[in-house]
Amino acid sequence: MDILRTIYADDMEDIATGGAILGTGGGGDPYVGKLMAQQAIKKYGPVKLVDIDQLADDALVVPVCMMGAPTVMTEKLPQGDELINAFRALEQLLGRKIDAVLCGEAGGVNSTTPFVVAAMTGLPLVDGDGMGRAYPELQMVTFSMHGVSATPMVLCDDKGNSIVLNTIDNKWTERLARSATVEMGGSALLAFYSMSGAVAKKAVVRGTLTLCAQLGKTLREAKAAHIEPVDEIVKSLDAQVIFHGRVKDIDRRTVGGFARGTAQFEGVEEWKGHSFKLDFQNEFLMAERDGKILVTTPDLITLLEAESGAPVTADSLRYGLRLKALAFASNPQWTTPAGIALVGPRYFGYDVDYTPFTA
Amino acid sequence: MDILRTIYADDMEDIATGGAILGTGGGGDPYVGKLMAQQAIKKYGPVKLVDIDQLADDALVVPVCMMGAPTVMTEKLPQGDELINAFRALEQLLGRKIDAVLCGEAGGVNSTTPFVVAAMTGLPLVDGDGMGRAYPELQMVTFSMHGVSATPMVLCDDKGNSIVLNTIDNKWTERLARSATVEMGGSALLAFYSMSGAVAKKAVVRGTLTLCAQLGKTLREAKAAHIEPVDEIVKSLDAQVIFHGRVKDIDRRTVGGFARGTAQFEGVEEWKGHSFKLDFQNEFLMAERDGKILVTTPDLITLLEAESGAPVTADSLRYGLRLKALAFASNPQWTTPAGIALVGPRYFGYDVDYTPFTA
Repeated sequence: MDILRTIYADDMEDIATGGAILGTGGGGDPYVGKLMAQQAIKKYGPVKLVDIDQLADDALVVPVCMMGAPTVMTEKLPQGDELINAFRALEQLLGRKIDAVLCGEAGGVNSTTPFVVAAMTGLPLVDGDGMGRAYPELQMVTFSMHGVSATPMVLCDDKGNSIVLNTIDNKWTERLARSATVEMGGSALLAFYSMSGAVAKKAVVRGTLTLCAQLGKTLREAKAAHIEPVDEIVKSLDAQVIFHGRVKDIDRRTVGGFARGTAQFEGVEEWKGHSFKLDFQNEFLMAERDGKILVTTPDLITLLEAESGAPVTADSLRYGLRLKALAFASNPQWTTPAGIALVGPRYFGYDVDYTPFTA
Repeated sequence: MDILRTIYADDMEDIATGGAILGTGGGGDPYVGKLMAQQAIKKYGPVKLVDIDQLADDALVVPVCMMGAPTVMTEKLPQGDELINAFRALEQLLGRKIDAVLCGEAGGVNSTTPFVVAAMTGLPLVDGDGMGRAYPELQMVTFSMHGVSATPMVLCDDKGNSIVLNTIDNKWTERLARSATVEMGGSALLAFYSMSGAVAKKAVVRGTLTLCAQLGKTLREAKAAHIEPVDEIVKSLDAQVIFHGRVKDIDRRTVGGFARGTAQFEGVEEWKGHSFKLDFQNEFLMAERDGKILVTTPDLITLLEAESGAPVTADSLRYGLRLKALAFASNPQWTTPAGIALVGPRYFGYDVDYTPFTA
């Protein structure tokens, strides 16, 4: 099998940072994600990143993920055991060897969890994911649109409890896994959406991990070269800066296993006198400027520190932070009718149709 | 294998009624329990009731149960499929044939659920259960005191979803199964606490199903012979009538998957001028008379209609009903230190030590 790239512990910083940019405020803290993967790679060896086309059509591919409110995920750094337990338990249930590991979502933590399993098992890791970004609910993956069942799914917690789910659809998987995750203390590790190489080739959002690494590298190099980091990210993603301001007010609570809330901003410099508001459910779902809806899912909304360009999660927003908000287009699978039904603004309860973002 | 007794559809009325007497207000509606078992027996044939000593020490015995707030259990009559699905899925997980079915708890519904599985599988049903009564939480079985793990456990709902739990202890099984049951709509069917014949012989509360049948028969015959039915039940159980009164006030709510509340009574006839209060969490946990604690778990508190002697669940209490309250002793396993730790008043949050009830 041709390897795209071998990933060493030092590479994880860029990947976690890039994951947090695509994580649109959710998907976990990149610092936590980086540490987890680095520990595993140092102990078990580097990870072979491969293109999805390298897999045989009858290969068995399994995504792994951490589930929970990012607030809790950050406090409960998993040791890797829970992840590998979930992965191995699913392998046993499926009754055959898994051939490759897949990433469920791009985010500060979830772009790195598959590296833990790939390092521990020595299996190749597919360069791609099921979202091309982060979304709050587990049925919100391209896999769902390609008829892949989330179950059988294995959930493990940090105490040694495990759950196997078999559900009638992926929305029921989300419901039952979410309530179990809440009961388990707010976070759990999952192996799910097992699929063949043939299906994965159609369903996977390709190149996500390489994109994460590139975004992280862009940010790192811009800082080193004293170039405006946000500008470089904007260029890389063909994004638009939709606001520049300071955090004025945050309303954040953990409800039903999600970090939900709103953040209000007041403009500075070119946006002085203007207001900006973000709604989030783990991830940023909707941006309003001066009281008007500007961007909704599936388009991506990301916050970067105005100076350093470092991505800022909804969880780490605090009063006074000066930030730039970026908007950019999602993977085209998400703007199909099936994609909009899964993750469009109406799913999240907003009485508005999706309109592609334009500056 | 010697059969104690063959149970036909017509026998289920007595068993469900007797189960509701031991059900201490919880354990489900006997009418629902009767229907469920009768349907199964009519379709698949009668059930062989056996003494536990008939089982080989290496036999595999599995209890089945319905979990949920009785309010919901009554509204959602299971069709039998969910129960047999849970039972067969556990059998497959365990990798060997199950030799006998066991009853988890005595109650209007849960003394009859094992008859459904025994009828459908043709397997013998052990005359006994894990409580000798009903309790609200699933770790509250004599099996727990004999080191039997509740897991692997299979939970099935009426929609086709299923869950396999593997937990570090039986209290975690309760927590995770309860939250899943709530998410599944308030009730689920379980197969759990698989154990060997040798362990079952020590752990099982013996003769519970025969006792249920006898209590039901006593009530039925007393009514037919115009003998005071409550008096006959009191004699059968060596119980005491601790109150006679009318329901004055009920505070009942479904919280965290349980029917919780209190019922207040005002005395009539010999108890005129006195007051009586019951606390319940599915089952009656504590009785107070004239403001003083009179009976607590593990002693049993049961309500019978004053005239007919029919058992009344916490769920079917309504203003004005004239009832007699009975108290009687639990199986001796429950008054050991281990038993009191599992189901004594302090577990339920009452700041009082267990004192054996005396009239």
